[in-house]
Amino acid sequence: MADWNRRTVLQGIGAGFAGSALIGQAQAQNGPKRKLGYAIVGLGSYATRQIMPQFKNCEYARLVALVSGTPEKLERYGAEYGVPRTHRYSYADYDKLRNNPDIDVVYVVLPNSMHAEYSIRASRAGKHVMCEKPMAVSVAECQAMIEAARAANRKLMIGYRCHFEPHNLRSVELVKTGFVGRPTLITAEHGFFAQPGQWRLDRPMSGGGSLMDIGIYSLNAARYLAGEEPMELVATEYTDRTDPRFRNVEDRIDFQLKFPSGVIANCVSSYSSGHNAFRVTGTKGWVGMEPATSYEGQKLFTRTGGDTEQVSVSTPRKNQFVAQLDHLPESILTGIPLRASGEEGLRDMRLIEAIYRSARERRAVSLA
Amino acid sequence: MADWNRRTVLQGIGAGFAGSALIGQAQAQNGPKRKLGYAIVGLGSYATRQIMPQFKNCEYARLVALVSGTPEKLERYGAEYGVPRTHRYSYADYDKLRNNPDIDVVYVVLPNSMHAEYSIRASRAGKHVMCEKPMAVSVAECQAMIEAARAANRKLMIGYRCHFEPHNLRSVELVKTGFVGRPTLITAEHGFFAQPGQWRLDRPMSGGGSLMDIGIYSLNAARYLAGEEPMELVATEYTDRTDPRFRNVEDRIDFQLKFPSGVIANCVSSYSSGHNAFRVTGTKGWVGMEPATSYEGQKLFTRTGGDTEQVSVSTPRKNQFVAQLDHLPESILTGIPLRASGEEGLRDMRLIEAIYRSARERRAVSLA
Repeated sequence: MADWNRRTVLQGIGAGFAGSALIGQAQAQNGPKRKLGYAIVGLGSYATRQIMPQFKNCEYARLVALVSGTPEKLERYGAEYGVPRTHRYSYADYDKLRNNPDIDVVYVVLPNSMHAEYSIRASRAGKHVMCEKPMAVSVAECQAMIEAARAANRKLMIGYRCHFEPHNLRSVELVKTGFVGRPTLITAEHGFFAQPGQWRLDRPMSGGGSLMDIGIYSLNAARYLAGEEPMELVATEYTDRTDPRFRNVEDRIDFQLKFPSGVIANCVSSYSSGHNAFRVTGTKGWVGMEPATSYEGQKLFTRTGGDTEQVSVSTPRKNQFVAQLDHLPESILTGIPLRASGEEGLRDMRLIEAIYRSARERRAVSLA
Repeated sequence: MADWNRRTVLQGIGAGFAGSALIGQAQAQNGPKRKLGYAIVGLGSYATRQIMPQFKNCEYARLVALVSGTPEKLERYGAEYGVPRTHRYSYADYDKLRNNPDIDVVYVVLPNSMHAEYSIRASRAGKHVMCEKPMAVSVAECQAMIEAARAANRKLMIGYRCHFEPHNLRSVELVKTGFVGRPTLITAEHGFFAQPGQWRLDRPMSGGGSLMDIGIYSLNAARYLAGEEPMELVATEYTDRTDPRFRNVEDRIDFQLKFPSGVIANCVSSYSSGHNAFRVTGTKGWVGMEPATSYEGQKLFTRTGGDTEQVSVSTPRKNQFVAQLDHLPESILTGIPLRASGEEGLRDMRLIEAIYRSARERRAVSLA
């Protein structure tokens, strides 16, 4: 299915044009083969429960291959999604993805510390890469991933599904168009109860605690709601090291981001309480969501002139998962600019490293 | 009306007993003269619009004297509240309060930088003192106020009306009795739009910006909701110094308090956006108010098991203003322990100085 030459031409055509105008063109030129093939790497609960069921609703993406270390999973999900044995891989066979022309995109849904290695090997195999957040566990790894994709002339996207979620997009638009006036405060709070025994609590797998896993939603939301990059931050950590869950990862780490325009973001990251909300307050009122970044059930509220209202956002044709899965192939096929690129993931990782440093050194960290 | 010997006896009787049991006793012994007399010092909008209209509902307090630098105000409010000319004072005559036995309590409602001087002079005049928040503009001033009241053997109370507000009290009780489980996060957000020309924007009068004025509600609420004292804090300030309102006071200063039990409080203080809310999240759910510390209209919400509910709090016989005005005389008459004492005001002032220091030095400040 992959047709690199044709796609290269399309990317050239697409350069400098608005993406939407090109969708029809891509469809027309790509004809019935407009869907690019994904290999899913790592068959954990997020991949199998959230991502894989969405392909049936995709316009540009289809599931063509599976990678897992568990033969039973390959058998079960291979059968469920009609992925033939020739397209099921163990990690030992991972580099053989290179030889499968049906695979256009490799979607890395592994524990955080494996993101860099498996993304880089996918780029070197000539595949486009979608990688789950957090992009990796260090700035150095993120840079290596970007470089590998660049060297292979392939795209690299990070799984920031909220960039495609309609209520989040509407919130960003309301802020950008002045609904709240000049923004002064962003609060972004994310947390859940970490269960003992999960890989997320094992630093060699996770690279860190709640910040890497759920606090990154607070961080990323603060940035897309502010529409600018922070210039300074301070952070406070609290972890009960006698709790067996938190022997080598942090429980809670809250941070304040200071943006050049003057907006301050108070962000929460927790493994020991439930939070899923943000609010942008400005000189005229506020826009807020709760839940904000959940898989479904988002609610958007606004307040101006003393009245709080729930804003109904029309259900789009594509939910956030479908829109994310479709976006990378559409960008490949049509040349529309890639949202949630590797550079976006790198920006968050730089801030994550700075947040850890601020909490450790108990001082503000400049981000100039 | 003042009868120091009788009250001293009552205080002795009251020591070691629950206050409520003594109210009837105080009423009985004090007979029809159970109301102590207040002098209101400073006839600005808070005094005249919020405080003075409440005396008619008080059980232990009555308005007997007025102090103002504006003869028209003395005339107008003297007439309105039936305060005879003999009980109306200019600031030049302030120390003559000493000679008026009808005055038991002096309530200082002046700009912040005048709190210490006028409270200390009232103590020295042998009067009990109620002083508005912030208690003063420095730790040193607060200490001098406490010492002056101690030396005069008179009481000193700070106008923390939220300590008497039923929804706030119910929130504290819910947290204390485990409704939210183990608390992990407190958010407390207060702000309003400072109008040009107000004394609060003039540092020599105000001693500081939003933190002194409205952010102190976030600070104080974080402390009473946590039920413990913070051990460390970090703060971030943003002030547009080109805005003529903020030439010498801060606009926004947000701070994180870290408490010994592990709860972290994210607090907001703003002069350029509206905020009036808090929320305490724990391992089982949350308790929150919005508005939280307004003059009226408080709303209390809780969330556990996925359900958010508004909690109705029965309207008490005394609103927060009346309960505050009554509390000091009741404590004087019956010996019940004083809530919102000078020591409470001093604790906030120590933290306010630490918050300013943290923002200035861009580092965490230990509060050991």
